[in-house]
Amino acid sequence: MNFRKQYEEYLNFFETRLKHFCAELDYRPPVLAESMRYSLLSGGKRVRPVLFFGMLEHYGLDYKAEFTLAAALECIHTYSLIHDDLPAMDNDDFRRGNPSNHKVFGEANAILAGDALLSEACSLLLGEGGKDGRHLRAAQYLAECAGPKGMIAGQSADLLYSEKEGDAEALAFIYAHKTGRLLKAPVVMAAILAERDIAAAERFGSELGNLFQLTDDLLDEKGERSKMGKTPGKDRKENKLTCVRIYGADEAELLADRAAANCHSALQNLGGDEFLAALVDFVRQRDN
Amino acid sequence: MNFRKQYEEYLNFFETRLKHFCAELDYRPPVLAESMRYSLLSGGKRVRPVLFFGMLEHYGLDYKAEFTLAAALECIHTYSLIHDDLPAMDNDDFRRGNPSNHKVFGEANAILAGDALLSEACSLLLGEGGKDGRHLRAAQYLAECAGPKGMIAGQSADLLYSEKEGDAEALAFIYAHKTGRLLKAPVVMAAILAERDIAAAERFGSELGNLFQLTDDLLDEKGERSKMGKTPGKDRKENKLTCVRIYGADEAELLADRAAANCHSALQNLGGDEFLAALVDFVRQRDN
Repeated sequence: MNFRKQYEEYLNFFETRLKHFCAELDYRPPVLAESMRYSLLSGGKRVRPVLFFGMLEHYGLDYKAEFTLAAALECIHTYSLIHDDLPAMDNDDFRRGNPSNHKVFGEANAILAGDALLSEACSLLLGEGGKDGRHLRAAQYLAECAGPKGMIAGQSADLLYSEKEGDAEALAFIYAHKTGRLLKAPVVMAAILAERDIAAAERFGSELGNLFQLTDDLLDEKGERSKMGKTPGKDRKENKLTCVRIYGADEAELLADRAAANCHSALQNLGGDEFLAALVDFVRQRDN
Repeated sequence: MNFRKQYEEYLNFFETRLKHFCAELDYRPPVLAESMRYSLLSGGKRVRPVLFFGMLEHYGLDYKAEFTLAAALECIHTYSLIHDDLPAMDNDDFRRGNPSNHKVFGEANAILAGDALLSEACSLLLGEGGKDGRHLRAAQYLAECAGPKGMIAGQSADLLYSEKEGDAEALAFIYAHKTGRLLKAPVVMAAILAERDIAAAERFGSELGNLFQLTDDLLDEKGERSKMGKTPGKDRKENKLTCVRIYGADEAELLADRAAANCHSALQNLGGDEFLAALVDFVRQRDN
């Protein structure tokens, strides 16, 4: 198995289908579809769809049959980035190397672009949910992960602890929700579709979410803007509750190593998988 | 039929069930659930749920069985008000007689409260969609009305024509989408659930949406803040494209009368209904 080749296969499939999907977003006024497309097609690693496809293949399912759930997932992820970058939120002028949505289209249009992407995801999920019980449960799982018990709770806690002191427990809550839920979602959705052990998938998804946010915080501390495509050093400036603030950078690196080891252990529990194991290492070692 | 008594029956049922629903919103951090509840329980006329219940009874269905779809509809309506009131959008400090969500919880929390309500609506719709084909189609109809082909297109056009000249055709687009779609939705959802003539329901829903926005614009021009619970005269100040700007207030009053007549005619086409006819007159004559 060539990891990079496999990753690119998933990525190319997703990008090609996403471009078709975006071409069909033909709304009036044009700025609405343009602003949605701008963020949806701005590249990025597409970790969540790739993870979903890898999990589906791990379970022996045809990943190409599940593009729509992957698209809904990416619409949700993208809307959360657009709203997160707003001046009232994290106030970030760059995302994936390009000006943030609101820097191009203005704040009002950026709010609507986010709302529109979440609405579009909801329509996609309803369509999938109408297929059969497995797809309905997978769609419901994603909706819950994206909602106020999931990602939005993490965003809310992230705001809260920018203003007050937080401890390791608060940090764990933010990690599990803000980033964790949308990384756990593709893992567990695949298990639901395959009718396999949900708890084992949940464990792998949770560990991977944890690893992803640890490396995200570390990148914000040490990363280079040219590689990251967004502004590094922002967490410290905005007094975000991060692993670096709680544990210091050196200890946080060790925690990330331990999180990667936990991912590998959880993956063994799923029967092991060469691509997914390499994906774990990719997340640990990424520089953007 | 006593219109006021019937309206209150629907309203009391909805408020009671909505309070239970809100009590179960027990998220962490608490500010998330508080900000959602603040706007969801801030009163209002609940025209959309009442219209939905009236339509269901018109078709001989048990309105109490469809609370969840009504709740999803009101969650969507409420999220749209929260985001619409934001400084970057319509910048309104008051809503339903109370400070707007962002005046109480801050902009960032208000953005998240809106996102959370839309996400919650999506989960509710998926749950309903899992019941049977009729509920799935009704849920899909609502999602489409709320999305970028519906309400959000109207919001986007509303922004656009605050900055440039618009004509009667642009006004009609804004009316049909910004307000129209979420008033048409309960009418058509009821027809879908009852498996009755969709086109006839769509006509009544469209006419009622048109009437509602005509009277909304007229109220902004002539209304009193004490009754409206929001700031009147804002449309003119913000250069909104309204029926008053296009036609002048006197002509707009005549248009509202004609729209009410069109509603009555469309209602006759549905077989007539005493409560719904009185509801049309109530919308025409409302002072808030």
